[in-house]
Amino acid sequence: MAQARFGGLDWIDLSTGINRTPFSLPSLPAEVWTALPTAAATARLLVVARTAYRSQAPMLAVGGAQAAIQLIPRISAPARARILAPTYNEHAAALRNAGWQVEEVASLAALEGADLAIVVNPNNPDGRCHAREDLLRLAIKVGRLVVDESFADARPDLSLAPDAALGRLIVLRSFGKFYGLAGARLGFILGPEADIATLTEMAGPWPVSGPAIAIGTAALSDRAWAETTAARLRTDAARLDALVQSAGWKHLGGTELFRLYDTPDAEAARDRLARHQIWTRMFPYSDRWLRLGLPGQPAEWGRLAAALRD
Amino acid sequence: MAQARFGGLDWIDLSTGINRTPFSLPSLPAEVWTALPTAAATARLLVVARTAYRSQAPMLAVGGAQAAIQLIPRISAPARARILAPTYNEHAAALRNAGWQVEEVASLAALEGADLAIVVNPNNPDGRCHAREDLLRLAIKVGRLVVDESFADARPDLSLAPDAALGRLIVLRSFGKFYGLAGARLGFILGPEADIATLTEMAGPWPVSGPAIAIGTAALSDRAWAETTAARLRTDAARLDALVQSAGWKHLGGTELFRLYDTPDAEAARDRLARHQIWTRMFPYSDRWLRLGLPGQPAEWGRLAAALRD
Repeated sequence: MAQARFGGLDWIDLSTGINRTPFSLPSLPAEVWTALPTAAATARLLVVARTAYRSQAPMLAVGGAQAAIQLIPRISAPARARILAPTYNEHAAALRNAGWQVEEVASLAALEGADLAIVVNPNNPDGRCHAREDLLRLAIKVGRLVVDESFADARPDLSLAPDAALGRLIVLRSFGKFYGLAGARLGFILGPEADIATLTEMAGPWPVSGPAIAIGTAALSDRAWAETTAARLRTDAARLDALVQSAGWKHLGGTELFRLYDTPDAEAARDRLARHQIWTRMFPYSDRWLRLGLPGQPAEWGRLAAALRD
Repeated sequence: MAQARFGGLDWIDLSTGINRTPFSLPSLPAEVWTALPTAAATARLLVVARTAYRSQAPMLAVGGAQAAIQLIPRISAPARARILAPTYNEHAAALRNAGWQVEEVASLAALEGADLAIVVNPNNPDGRCHAREDLLRLAIKVGRLVVDESFADARPDLSLAPDAALGRLIVLRSFGKFYGLAGARLGFILGPEADIATLTEMAGPWPVSGPAIAIGTAALSDRAWAETTAARLRTDAARLDALVQSAGWKHLGGTELFRLYDTPDAEAARDRLARHQIWTRMFPYSDRWLRLGLPGQPAEWGRLAAALRD
């Protein structure tokens, strides 16, 4: 749609929080395409995921964090859900679609008493973070607490994955964002044994493709890549903040994979970058906020700098 | 498990109905891995799928026919389902898991009156086929009729895909079996607009990986490959029947992708082939039936012939 309106073919998509310097694809044996994924291959993936996420909790691999978001509302009969907002809008959409009464609230305290509470940590789009202790305290005051850690790869200190077997707590992890391979469709759900068993039955056999299992196993095994990438993303995030502030927009928050800025006019700001074939993200509930993912290759940084000077 | 018991590394897996001469993978641009699948790419896939399946019905691409089987029970509140049996056991499992009362029946007529009726056409494992007219007549006598056409690629004459917009009728298609790419996870649901809209909301955005969309688009566009492959599978199925009958087993039925045989003792027959590192499929409800997929490369035919002579 942006292409149709602004023209040009060589767009830089900064409208997502997907790492633009992806993990290099391993060579893929023919069998990952031709055969059904085996239980052994899935088990190997879960072994490396447990190390990467520092958790021995029961775990299910699914076709992306979004697939997890689609399953969560069906884990029990619909009741009253509360979501810490503003946040990624698909949680509310999936819950309402499954018949839940959904209330969006502004503080952790206001989540207490919900049958199902959702917290995205760090949050999208503002990067708000909650300490593990605060979330663990909340968990015992709700029916179930779902913590979406889609943007937590660079912040293992925040992660509740190690605590996800405790009961009432379910943790969602995204593979594609931090590893820059969102097209592969891979994510994980960690939680109490009974919940993971229910979700496993709902997901059915083979919810993840053979290539995604192979790539996920290679990528999550490579802890050096993860550490180097987390450090590089932190540096790049600071670089983006400096670049954008020089254009007069104010930094509001963000994670290592995207930054949120306050602009005088979000639509004008988005269109200004779009005229340089750089696509960014506005939000229906703000006429000032603009979210930018981090550029990848040097040429992308150069184009963004030029667009911001324009 | 077979490997652990019988040893050997170079197994031929004939326990599935997956074509062992797969469609050749197209070259995949980096974007199919790195970016989220776009609406445009999915739309292109559906255009070629509509041509391949000869249908203008509303259609949803999902991560395999199994993913469709997982979604179908959630299309409405659980009630009374009937399944034409014996057949692929995951239909009953998914329905029961979602709270449906499931009855397995032996004839089309016995499906009448069900809130949801399931027919696999051609059927797995016996290859039983039903004419389009019979199924269309049944469709108006049930709440919904789901026809699983996972093995119908070589039998377009049987397909109800062209009729799937009529209301009450939902058709499931598998990509991975006929194209020999089961690891990619791709399948389709065709049906009335309201049902496809409901299923689309339940599946959420990005239910299919970027590579699967690209591969599916290339493969389903290649009608010459499909016709050549259907003819080759028919020839190979007859060849397998002749080979196996020479070993004294009786042909019971099957499709172009697998054959069902009556043996004096299914377990002994399976183990006899397993000692030659050829894995086949038994069924819990028969101590005589053995199902074999079709060998692929010439060496696989040679090994099967040798094993059957042993």
